[in-house]
Amino acid sequence: MCIGLDVDLNKIPKHLLKESDPIFAFNKAIIDATHHLCVAYKPNIAFYEAYGIKGWQALEKTIKYLNDNYPEIFTIADAKRGDIGNTSTMYAKAFFEDLAFDSVTVAPYMGKDSIEPFLAFKNKHTIMLALTSNQGAFDFQTKAIDGKEVYKHVLETSKSWKHAEHLMYVVGATKAEYFADIRKIIPNSFLLVPGVGAQGGNLQDVCKYGMNANVGLLINSSRGIIYASTSENYAHAAALKAKELQSAMQKILLNR
Amino acid sequence: MCIGLDVDLNKIPKHLLKESDPIFAFNKAIIDATHHLCVAYKPNIAFYEAYGIKGWQALEKTIKYLNDNYPEIFTIADAKRGDIGNTSTMYAKAFFEDLAFDSVTVAPYMGKDSIEPFLAFKNKHTIMLALTSNQGAFDFQTKAIDGKEVYKHVLETSKSWKHAEHLMYVVGATKAEYFADIRKIIPNSFLLVPGVGAQGGNLQDVCKYGMNANVGLLINSSRGIIYASTSENYAHAAALKAKELQSAMQKILLNR
Repeated sequence: MCIGLDVDLNKIPKHLLKESDPIFAFNKAIIDATHHLCVAYKPNIAFYEAYGIKGWQALEKTIKYLNDNYPEIFTIADAKRGDIGNTSTMYAKAFFEDLAFDSVTVAPYMGKDSIEPFLAFKNKHTIMLALTSNQGAFDFQTKAIDGKEVYKHVLETSKSWKHAEHLMYVVGATKAEYFADIRKIIPNSFLLVPGVGAQGGNLQDVCKYGMNANVGLLINSSRGIIYASTSENYAHAAALKAKELQSAMQKILLNR
Repeated sequence: MCIGLDVDLNKIPKHLLKESDPIFAFNKAIIDATHHLCVAYKPNIAFYEAYGIKGWQALEKTIKYLNDNYPEIFTIADAKRGDIGNTSTMYAKAFFEDLAFDSVTVAPYMGKDSIEPFLAFKNKHTIMLALTSNQGAFDFQTKAIDGKEVYKHVLETSKSWKHAEHLMYVVGATKAEYFADIRKIIPNSFLLVPGVGAQGGNLQDVCKYGMNANVGLLINSSRGIIYASTSENYAHAAALKAKELQSAMQKILLNR
């Protein structure tokens, strides 16, 4: 399980707004209450950039808090970046070096030379969008090139890129029936799976079609966990929601 | 002409590194020396994020300096963002409201509901990647879906999106021969054209195939202008390079 730290000041408990850094205060409480239930945290960078310098400071504090206190936890900068080569290198430095995330999400539209600069970083993972959880995935990703969908071309083509062993892929939980085909192309890769919870994806189906011998799935929930309550007990409420999802996952893992 | 403010501390004149904010000092000098030669500036956000909080501060100061002193200049946050709906709204707020840019670049992979949140902002422009200037453009963008290339599907599909009148498109100058086909799909749209200069795109060919009755082209040069010299006269040197490109453009405009 991965927990998405998508902090919206309009949705967090009102009493936190008195804090000097409400976003970090919220994240710290959520992390302290849930770290034993998950293996990864994923701040979506949009939610931090929307608050400018203050947001970026909260992001820096959050990743530092995670790295200092829970170094075994995998961290994902959900940034969906991608640009021409020298520019992608700058993004990679921002997330891998300056902020010291373990991984970053990237978009494939600009192709090989926009992604390889990320893959060049040792001991880091680059998580590329393949089939996303939203409705707009059907606009281009599922259209067929020579009888094969765009997202399948993305998966296949990326396997030949330099340091492809650092690649993971985003596959949305709302499209569970696609996992079987995806596993034929990338049987061993780790998948980051958003869309369980608020977006309606089904955990059982995702596991049924997407799991491999090493599990190979990192299933994310954001809003369904972190906004469980707006009371002063919000962190405890989030932990209960996280525990619920973690138990459902454990049951599947024990019965496979 | 648009000038790209892609500031790399390893490439700017060494004497600037003594300044409290070398990135802003560099940008301010370049802007003051070139603003009469161009109609737009385009900071690539990667170059600012790579320096963390200091980079973000330099970006804030740069856009404020532009808006305060040269309000007639069009500003582009070259960010290549795109995410599920509520998250794209956060990015749109970051660049349109918090930073007050006139426009932002976005990536189309996640489809309609990842772009419409940007288009919803009045008096702002959203500049979507169509055919990019890099080699990786041939990995997916030029592959054919039912006999028609992916980038053409992107152009055609986007025309039906809500507030499509706020759309502009990125088309790389290194692929000038594609402009004629692109103009058949979007005859009236404004195009942001990177790739003239350091990347090798040809100005004459781009204008020959891409210009419409309102010109319809915003041609960007970054490295070719801003890194013209590393001496103390770097801003003057940049202005000379900008003047050279602006004269070449003027000649084409007068002879059409």
